[in-house]
Amino acid sequence: MQDNLITSAQNPKIKKLAALQQKSSERRSEHLFVVEGRRELQHCIDAGFQIDTVFFCPSILEGTDGMAIVEQLPSGVRTFEVSAEVYNKIAYRGGTEGIVAEVRTKAISLADLSDEPNPLYVVLESVEKPGNLGAILRSADAAKADAVIVCDPLTDLYNPNLIRSSVGAIFTVPCVACSSEECIEFLKSRGVRILTAQLQDSELYYDTDMKCGTAIVMGTESTGLTDQWRQAADAHIRIPMLGQLDSLNVSVSAAILLFEAVRQRN
Amino acid sequence: MQDNLITSAQNPKIKKLAALQQKSSERRSEHLFVVEGRRELQHCIDAGFQIDTVFFCPSILEGTDGMAIVEQLPSGVRTFEVSAEVYNKIAYRGGTEGIVAEVRTKAISLADLSDEPNPLYVVLESVEKPGNLGAILRSADAAKADAVIVCDPLTDLYNPNLIRSSVGAIFTVPCVACSSEECIEFLKSRGVRILTAQLQDSELYYDTDMKCGTAIVMGTESTGLTDQWRQAADAHIRIPMLGQLDSLNVSVSAAILLFEAVRQRN
Repeated sequence: MQDNLITSAQNPKIKKLAALQQKSSERRSEHLFVVEGRRELQHCIDAGFQIDTVFFCPSILEGTDGMAIVEQLPSGVRTFEVSAEVYNKIAYRGGTEGIVAEVRTKAISLADLSDEPNPLYVVLESVEKPGNLGAILRSADAAKADAVIVCDPLTDLYNPNLIRSSVGAIFTVPCVACSSEECIEFLKSRGVRILTAQLQDSELYYDTDMKCGTAIVMGTESTGLTDQWRQAADAHIRIPMLGQLDSLNVSVSAAILLFEAVRQRN
Repeated sequence: MQDNLITSAQNPKIKKLAALQQKSSERRSEHLFVVEGRRELQHCIDAGFQIDTVFFCPSILEGTDGMAIVEQLPSGVRTFEVSAEVYNKIAYRGGTEGIVAEVRTKAISLADLSDEPNPLYVVLESVEKPGNLGAILRSADAAKADAVIVCDPLTDLYNPNLIRSSVGAIFTVPCVACSSEECIEFLKSRGVRILTAQLQDSELYYDTDMKCGTAIVMGTESTGLTDQWRQAADAHIRIPMLGQLDSLNVSVSAAILLFEAVRQRN
């Protein structure tokens, strides 16, 4: 490990880090993304992601759990010490963590998903907000879903808001991006029941069997699912809306449906 | 109605509006808060809140559903037309809504809650993030909970992030702020079962009866509930954490528990 001290936000390495945080095109071309925080980085390492570069601020790390995570980094990781001033510029959560890393992206495809019996998948069509996808990954971890599959995504899977709101679940739950056609073919080939969340022509979600292989499929909050998913469905399910408003947040809906599967399967 | 055109963000009325958006002390001393958007304002009027002042931008309103909401405002409401430039400064959602209102606060107390049989309450102790409280109100509307009770709150109920994330549910669900002592006494006096969400010494939430009068009580994500709530509980319940992370977002947890009550009661 080679340690260098960076005290200026104008340092080219800091500028590259900022570009990776801000631009999906930069993440795509460099095959790198940014992870902030010790717990998140530990989940990332445990999941077998390859850490490229680490920026750490000793004065912040020492104030908490110490430098252990830096000392235990795999060999080959480039490490740079940054001043507290630089750290506060590169970190979203300011002075609370003390470590930010550039990590190599790792695409998972449908074929990589394990062939366990009765899998539980969440499928999201055209999800718009990275924060919602991160929150769904967090619930999927808690419910031990087998994967989150994102069809025709409008955000990349390495968006900093997604990484942050997932609090590490992007590393603990397999997350696949593909087209809706590929996903439907995959689910049909594995005999997984497709349950589409939609208000019209649907049964109550808790009247639907989720003990067999199940894919819970959700569209955007504004326009819902496209016809290809409605037609591919084995059942249409809905969460009853008993009040005066007409919709729930998509990440809240996903959690309610996932934990109904947990309840039925226990 | 008296119409006036405001074209400068330095106008004292616009400055007062900004202060109400930014400062809880201003909201407390003026007994006013700010509501943005047509649907939210309609829910607010339907719930019997008193509208004090309305700022609207005709060029934005005409582009969508038109000026109907301005024309149908109750008499006595002061209305001001603002330029698109001023509107974009005062509105969080920029050019999408065209209407912002100052509304009189209306405190609801525990004694105001109706005495229906088998009520369903959500109780939140020391909730920190206004956005979480707003999201919980939205789920509480969907589950037709009888009230959300906020004990020892660290945020005021009229915070703009709360209003916004509730998408109007702050007006459709009774929301009471009080002390934990008052709340416990109220629940005991009405024979409502107190279910505290906690990981230790708890049963699975779906093994707990929620058909009788039920209060689902949740603490902060960081420190959980205080001892007074744990001791007042009739049952301790937990959502199983089956993955590698150790907690769910509080608004997601609230939705899972609320909809288990819906399932059992249907």
